[in-house]
Amino acid sequence: MDYKAATREMKADSYKMASLPAEVRDGALRAIAAALEKNKAEIFTANEADRAAGSALPAPILARLKFDEHKLADCIKGINDLIAMPDPLFQKQLIRELDDGLTLVRSSCPIGVIGVIFESRPDALVQISALCIKSGNSVILKGGSEAAKSNRTLFDVIYKAGIEAGLPEGFAMLVEDRAGVAELLSCHDSVDLIIPRGSNEFVQHIMSNTKIPVMGHADGICTIYVDKEAAVDKAARIIADAKEQYVSACNATEMLLVHKDIDKDALIEKVKANAEHDIKVNIDGEYKEYLDYEMSVREVSDVDEAIALINRNGSHHTDAIITENKKTAEHFMDMVDSAGVYHNCSTRFADGYRYGFGAEVGISTGKIHARGPVGLEGLVTYKYKLYGSDHIVGDYASGARSFNFKDL
Amino acid sequence: MDYKAATREMKADSYKMASLPAEVRDGALRAIAAALEKNKAEIFTANEADRAAGSALPAPILARLKFDEHKLADCIKGINDLIAMPDPLFQKQLIRELDDGLTLVRSSCPIGVIGVIFESRPDALVQISALCIKSGNSVILKGGSEAAKSNRTLFDVIYKAGIEAGLPEGFAMLVEDRAGVAELLSCHDSVDLIIPRGSNEFVQHIMSNTKIPVMGHADGICTIYVDKEAAVDKAARIIADAKEQYVSACNATEMLLVHKDIDKDALIEKVKANAEHDIKVNIDGEYKEYLDYEMSVREVSDVDEAIALINRNGSHHTDAIITENKKTAEHFMDMVDSAGVYHNCSTRFADGYRYGFGAEVGISTGKIHARGPVGLEGLVTYKYKLYGSDHIVGDYASGARSFNFKDL
Repeated sequence: MDYKAATREMKADSYKMASLPAEVRDGALRAIAAALEKNKAEIFTANEADRAAGSALPAPILARLKFDEHKLADCIKGINDLIAMPDPLFQKQLIRELDDGLTLVRSSCPIGVIGVIFESRPDALVQISALCIKSGNSVILKGGSEAAKSNRTLFDVIYKAGIEAGLPEGFAMLVEDRAGVAELLSCHDSVDLIIPRGSNEFVQHIMSNTKIPVMGHADGICTIYVDKEAAVDKAARIIADAKEQYVSACNATEMLLVHKDIDKDALIEKVKANAEHDIKVNIDGEYKEYLDYEMSVREVSDVDEAIALINRNGSHHTDAIITENKKTAEHFMDMVDSAGVYHNCSTRFADGYRYGFGAEVGISTGKIHARGPVGLEGLVTYKYKLYGSDHIVGDYASGARSFNFKDL
Repeated sequence: MDYKAATREMKADSYKMASLPAEVRDGALRAIAAALEKNKAEIFTANEADRAAGSALPAPILARLKFDEHKLADCIKGINDLIAMPDPLFQKQLIRELDDGLTLVRSSCPIGVIGVIFESRPDALVQISALCIKSGNSVILKGGSEAAKSNRTLFDVIYKAGIEAGLPEGFAMLVEDRAGVAELLSCHDSVDLIIPRGSNEFVQHIMSNTKIPVMGHADGICTIYVDKEAAVDKAARIIADAKEQYVSACNATEMLLVHKDIDKDALIEKVKANAEHDIKVNIDGEYKEYLDYEMSVREVSDVDEAIALINRNGSHHTDAIITENKKTAEHFMDMVDSAGVYHNCSTRFADGYRYGFGAEVGISTGKIHARGPVGLEGLVTYKYKLYGSDHIVGDYASGARSFNFKDL
């Protein structure tokens, strides 16, 4: 496959996609939800074949691979939630009269062509496609090879329904070969953004091998700091949840910092008592992403030492403080340089659904463009439209005219 | 100089910078404006030395290099305008109750450490420093070598005044050696954003040699399309301004597309009659950045051909349509994928000052984060603060609690 040519064609179609009114994009989403329901037998069969072929895979991966009635219902609910959301496009973010008859309008528009490389969950394909359609972006999808049949079947159903509902041919493309990823990374003339979801090494590899902007996160090393004014029982319950509620998530806590005035051993015992699983604790352990029932614990002398450790060694994802002192909490939240800074709650809340975004295309630890869970808003940009009446700059340079800014 | 260590220290100080209240940042700007006025003799002397050393440079570069009473007054006015602007930090962009006692706040904050590499104008150093201080960012400045003495003197005045007004030591750094740029590009752990201003080759070089996000523009190939329903006399006046008002600017027009029903030769004659300089016209010329009194002209059969040519060959900077038909204009403005899309006015309006942003740190043709002229708003990001009352995710997973989103 010639990806340079294919993405160039997508790029041309992405402008048609960008100019479609909300009714067409929402209509396509409705058609896709109906088509998924109608073709579910075929989808489930493909998914069963993937799971049979991957029966030797670890249990957590097999669980993520599963696409059944329950997952389908979630997907369809997600699509319906998106349909109900206001159109993110054509929003006038600024209307400013620069001078008589010269009006500047900042209008939201799609980013263009977005490449998303995602892991083994086939439902991610549905969610990402739906977010891109709602936001008027064309999407290039590359899923995990263990979900190849599920992804192909889901893509075909979505693509056919989308085209019939009036989306341009280049609204979506499925990449099925690993070599395609490397080729995509060189298509910086046609692809506007890459969103990689996967291992640290994989995301670092992507970032080092493309001129295309990359949005996402490499690590998820979240920390909870237990302040000297923490209520220890509450802290233990929050830590147990943040560690074990879903250990393979990027927002699971990997490091516990404990103020020296808190009895660390007693706290750890309480965390274990609150946990359903056996949590392995590494005293003075390093900052690392365990993705397991295991965590590091360190003592710190005050909140500022905790802040410095988190900023230096964390992954700028989500970090929490447990304290009854609101001033200390606010200081921590201002100084910690992470996408999410939490007070008295679990780091596991860092998620587009839990933030009320409807869905997310990923979580960004970068500070440019979207940060944290990336929903519809992170998939749009804007352009400046300037409406003149034959205005020239020479008149302003000579002093014949002058600007008279007025926000409308 | 050890840039890795120096930027790591700046990074640590950038958190202090981020937490300073607006009064301190605005107070520093006031102190800097006063210090520039007080030390102007020393600044002018340094600038005269730079101009004497560079007397063999082309006249336009020498003109840009000049820093005199007039430029100083502009700089001080720019600083005062910034002081008068609302604080871009600590703005609550979203306040959402997720559930009882669990409140999400999206709060604006600085990006962190920003590296700006700029051209020969010493006034750019003042403008960029002021924008970064107002937005709470630490800034690494690298100016052109022909302005070395001016930049060093301006930097010393600004740095001393800033420190005395309470800014942290790492609020600014001046890089004076070319080798320093290459080292900075490898400091992706400490530097959050690079803004290069310079030639196409230079910006491309930067983009290809760093993992740090880059914001800016490589080319400025702006197009004016003269539609079949254009008023030709008005078109000629706008084209002359867009071409010659300042030929070395990135927003100068380089390509003219003319609808086949318009008499191209007559239009060109009228453009020449409106121009003060002798404009060289290349019929069927290529898309290129002349930065001179020269432009390409091509005939197109309709607005869609013009849109396709601009999207394929332009630089996504600023493009204009001249037409009396508002529907055609709106179609062009929706379909052209550029930071600025203009109707019946000169492309030269693409500028932070003319947009009423007070000042700009550069113009971005990228679509991620800021697009077009980048003012204060483009220098901030946000973080999500989540205020809980011992909330854990397990309660929502088990169904014991459920989200109840309410925007406050």
